[in-house]
Amino acid sequence: MTGPVVPSRGVLRPVGLPQVRLTGGFWGRRQEVNGTATIGHNAQWIDRMGWSGNFREPLKTARRRGREFSDSEVYKLTEAMCWESARPGGHRHDARLNEFTELIKNAQAPDGYLHTAFGRPGQPRRYSDLNFGHELYCNGHFLQAAVAAARTQKAPELLDVARKVADHICVAFGEAGICGHPEVETALVELYRVTGQRRYLEMAATFVERRGYRTLAEHEFGWGYFQDDVPVKQAEVFHGHAVRALYLAAGAVDVAVETGDDDLLEKIRKQFDRTLARRTYLTGGMGSRHLDESYGDDFQLPSDRSYSETCAGVATIHLAHRLLLATGDMRYGDIVDRILHNVIATAVADDGRSFFYAHTLHQRTPAEVPEPGHERLRFGGAGRAPWFEVSCCPNNVARLLASLGTYLVTEDDDGAQVHQFAPMRAEAGGMVFDVDTAYPDGGTVTVTIVEAPPEPRTLTLRLPQWAKEDAPEGVFRRVFRPGEQLRMELPMRPRWTFPDPRADALRGCAAVEVGPLVMCAESTDQEEGVSLDEVQVDTSVAPEAGAVKGRRTKPVDDDWPYRSHRVSTERPDPVVVPLLPYHRWARRGPSTMRIWLPTT
Amino acid sequence: MTGPVVPSRGVLRPVGLPQVRLTGGFWGRRQEVNGTATIGHNAQWIDRMGWSGNFREPLKTARRRGREFSDSEVYKLTEAMCWESARPGGHRHDARLNEFTELIKNAQAPDGYLHTAFGRPGQPRRYSDLNFGHELYCNGHFLQAAVAAARTQKAPELLDVARKVADHICVAFGEAGICGHPEVETALVELYRVTGQRRYLEMAATFVERRGYRTLAEHEFGWGYFQDDVPVKQAEVFHGHAVRALYLAAGAVDVAVETGDDDLLEKIRKQFDRTLARRTYLTGGMGSRHLDESYGDDFQLPSDRSYSETCAGVATIHLAHRLLLATGDMRYGDIVDRILHNVIATAVADDGRSFFYAHTLHQRTPAEVPEPGHERLRFGGAGRAPWFEVSCCPNNVARLLASLGTYLVTEDDDGAQVHQFAPMRAEAGGMVFDVDTAYPDGGTVTVTIVEAPPEPRTLTLRLPQWAKEDAPEGVFRRVFRPGEQLRMELPMRPRWTFPDPRADALRGCAAVEVGPLVMCAESTDQEEGVSLDEVQVDTSVAPEAGAVKGRRTKPVDDDWPYRSHRVSTERPDPVVVPLLPYHRWARRGPSTMRIWLPTT
Repeated sequence: MTGPVVPSRGVLRPVGLPQVRLTGGFWGRRQEVNGTATIGHNAQWIDRMGWSGNFREPLKTARRRGREFSDSEVYKLTEAMCWESARPGGHRHDARLNEFTELIKNAQAPDGYLHTAFGRPGQPRRYSDLNFGHELYCNGHFLQAAVAAARTQKAPELLDVARKVADHICVAFGEAGICGHPEVETALVELYRVTGQRRYLEMAATFVERRGYRTLAEHEFGWGYFQDDVPVKQAEVFHGHAVRALYLAAGAVDVAVETGDDDLLEKIRKQFDRTLARRTYLTGGMGSRHLDESYGDDFQLPSDRSYSETCAGVATIHLAHRLLLATGDMRYGDIVDRILHNVIATAVADDGRSFFYAHTLHQRTPAEVPEPGHERLRFGGAGRAPWFEVSCCPNNVARLLASLGTYLVTEDDDGAQVHQFAPMRAEAGGMVFDVDTAYPDGGTVTVTIVEAPPEPRTLTLRLPQWAKEDAPEGVFRRVFRPGEQLRMELPMRPRWTFPDPRADALRGCAAVEVGPLVMCAESTDQEEGVSLDEVQVDTSVAPEAGAVKGRRTKPVDDDWPYRSHRVSTERPDPVVVPLLPYHRWARRGPSTMRIWLPTT
Repeated sequence: MTGPVVPSRGVLRPVGLPQVRLTGGFWGRRQEVNGTATIGHNAQWIDRMGWSGNFREPLKTARRRGREFSDSEVYKLTEAMCWESARPGGHRHDARLNEFTELIKNAQAPDGYLHTAFGRPGQPRRYSDLNFGHELYCNGHFLQAAVAAARTQKAPELLDVARKVADHICVAFGEAGICGHPEVETALVELYRVTGQRRYLEMAATFVERRGYRTLAEHEFGWGYFQDDVPVKQAEVFHGHAVRALYLAAGAVDVAVETGDDDLLEKIRKQFDRTLARRTYLTGGMGSRHLDESYGDDFQLPSDRSYSETCAGVATIHLAHRLLLATGDMRYGDIVDRILHNVIATAVADDGRSFFYAHTLHQRTPAEVPEPGHERLRFGGAGRAPWFEVSCCPNNVARLLASLGTYLVTEDDDGAQVHQFAPMRAEAGGMVFDVDTAYPDGGTVTVTIVEAPPEPRTLTLRLPQWAKEDAPEGVFRRVFRPGEQLRMELPMRPRWTFPDPRADALRGCAAVEVGPLVMCAESTDQEEGVSLDEVQVDTSVAPEAGAVKGRRTKPVDDDWPYRSHRVSTERPDPVVVPLLPYHRWARRGPSTMRIWLPTT
């Protein structure tokens, strides 16, 4: 199958990229921008930062540029180019793909080792810094790129390089050792799926099993940062560095599926359930702490210090998709929907050439506009930047968008399932069908059958959790006829949403959602002179399409912010608070913004 | 004068350490523990970490241990030992002081340069990393130590070393350059006060003036981290790394006082005012972000991620004391009082041998107990540790406690002012008097005149802001007679405190204060089975001495923490929530804790 995740068993089966053609709409436009702008933009930056050059000059190590994980950006973008070239309507990047392929091939050591920052004269020894060396992390991204190159036949010679890398890892880590940043686990399983080499699966399973025994060096962030504090099966919730935790979980699911370890699968499900229930932002974002890019404690979800890294969004989609395939539980589509529309859609500028790294849910002061040439130091989330010193997010988004088709539709012996709503033609479950929708800007989803067998088939449209009270299940089973239309109407009226009382940072606040979209108030749209610090909204009045009603309070400036009485909000003026989808914020210059609005 | 801050002009004058003898009580006990336990404990750790050894082996640079600022710990502790030895009832540390003195003298380069991490064979060049090299920062702490050594006459030969250091700085930084960590500014002014060398004052003034023009190298935290984003006089509020900001402000006040730059003084006052009104925790702590140890935006004061470093508490006391002397505005004593009783008193274990680095105001999960030997990586604030890899806080507290007397009482031509209440005998304003009080555990402050001149004198006791509604001003002016007693009664009944509505993290919460003490609820004291996540307090009922009334709610566990309705707290049970002073928390094993309590 031509796509990124191809389990050998599971309740649902993935559909290859060639079988899903996005035909415009919210995601079709974004996929097009990704192919025509983002991929090329990223490639130029990778050159400019010297990260591709590191492969070119294996002996001049003093000139190596970038951090230990910069190799992985070359790999992630290689993967993105493969998927992009293979998707229906995708754009070819042959010259660049050939260039990267040659660079990678030439950088591999005779024994299979592949990393530009270790092991050469003047460099640190191989595997001398398992905590932060990112050697297996980079290898993992390379294996994923090679799998994409092989499945799409865009650069099949990378598969040989990948086998040598994986063989080397199996020897070097035969006895002990794990990487500080999980990623190689899921990659080794995928390579096993392509090659049939069971030792790769076994190595992945071993890496999952070895984790949690504090074999990495102690660090001020604690072993939990690397998920090396508690064995995977004994953890109760995702913790530590969010992207690490999510990549590890995805790898554990892959191992569980291929080895038949249902206990491991069930444990990851439970940990993910608890993470969704207690450690996830309304946007679907994860990661509450800037310091170590980590999950917070349960219900520690500060809006104004949310980290919610773009990569954690991508990683959660990876994980949810794997669990969806393994279990057939369609509610995993809900979190994918939420992340796509509130994290991924927010992450990329309209022109595809700048990105959010972290996603704040509350911008208290307008972002400073960096001087030209200084944008890439902006990790904080206050504005999109064309690149970052640590630039995982732009390439992670690129590979996700290029392969987006595979996350929308699945199939089983009985028919097809549509998990995400976008205009497309899909070939799945023995049928060909068109999906037409304005989603997320409209709630009507129309499926037109193009081809269908003469036997009864089931076509299932995910009914989002937020629609369950107002719409019937979207399960259609019959003998479909070409031209026949199925329709689902999702209720798109704006709705109030209230936080769990244990989420301290959100106490006394409410948010507005419309379908899968989280709404926000941005200063740009507010009445002249109305500060978002002064607004309270009235949740007894239903929110309207683009606005809620409330009142304006008068802040009382004092010499100490704690008082013996509650401050009375003198002269409350009624006010209308315009809202817009969160993914549209920060597109019209520096502004303040908040998703959670204090209530009257 | 024998003390750390001796301005040549100002509304109030400091009183030297020999003139204030603490005679037991809350602070007398802590000062004693500091002298008998903490100073020796710190010295042992400085040896064990190799930080004193760095001075001993100037040529074996490959073996240098610790971070670039580790020299400063030797200096801070030297300063602490001088003050400790000189205070009435203090403990001598002569052997150690002599040892450190010899080490320091021998480590100085012939041209006056003094730092163990730069400039020797195999080390980076001097001043090659102004952002993070901490060379002038360390020099500043050395100059302060030398000033203490000279004023106390405990190691007067260090003054010559200090002159050579300062002369070297004046040459090396004659044309350009600032240090990434302010500290040398205040130290150079103090050295000027001891030596009369005006070039030191001018160098300090120049460092203050040079700051804010982005001459330091760009960094991902931004120039604001180093206060190099905006010239000192143009800033509106303290920002960036909190300790850096506060040390800089203290230096700017010193410069303003000695050069007569009233504009600079007034600007620092205003910045501090705004910082107190918008960026300060209820405890008096400062620093809302772990990532860069920095202030947050206005009203960004998350309890569960408060950084509130011990050193920022010490630094705020340093600054407030300077402003108190310069302006005579006794309200600066309020913030000193608050920090002493809620940050400094919290920072040190009862035995003086373990410390908080950061101070959380809300502990959501009980701290993990580190395995023996691993405690020093605990910066996070969940428990006290015997030492840290970056161990500024234990030595900063040691020098503060040893010199505490000087922060309690001042004088002017008309009499004496008592700013902090502690049992003591003081000689100030031409009088000798005893203060007797159980403060902060009781509100009666009794002053007994021991000696007084036959002319009228004024004796002023600071009336805390929280007492203003219930107690008359503590100003006594007359001809005092030996044996005569003055009394002030401060209202010590517990009181509710409410946050500014703009402090999002505190919305819907209240806290209890008793006198200067912030109270907290610790899980250790709660009824069996009552979690601090479930408690709501009733602010219509006055808090009692050690408890408040409220109700217990029932958390509703769901698969998603955001809902279309407010969760009703079914079956609310009445509950009594025991409280204790915040400074007592985390002394009985791992626990959860919160200062701000959700209200019914």
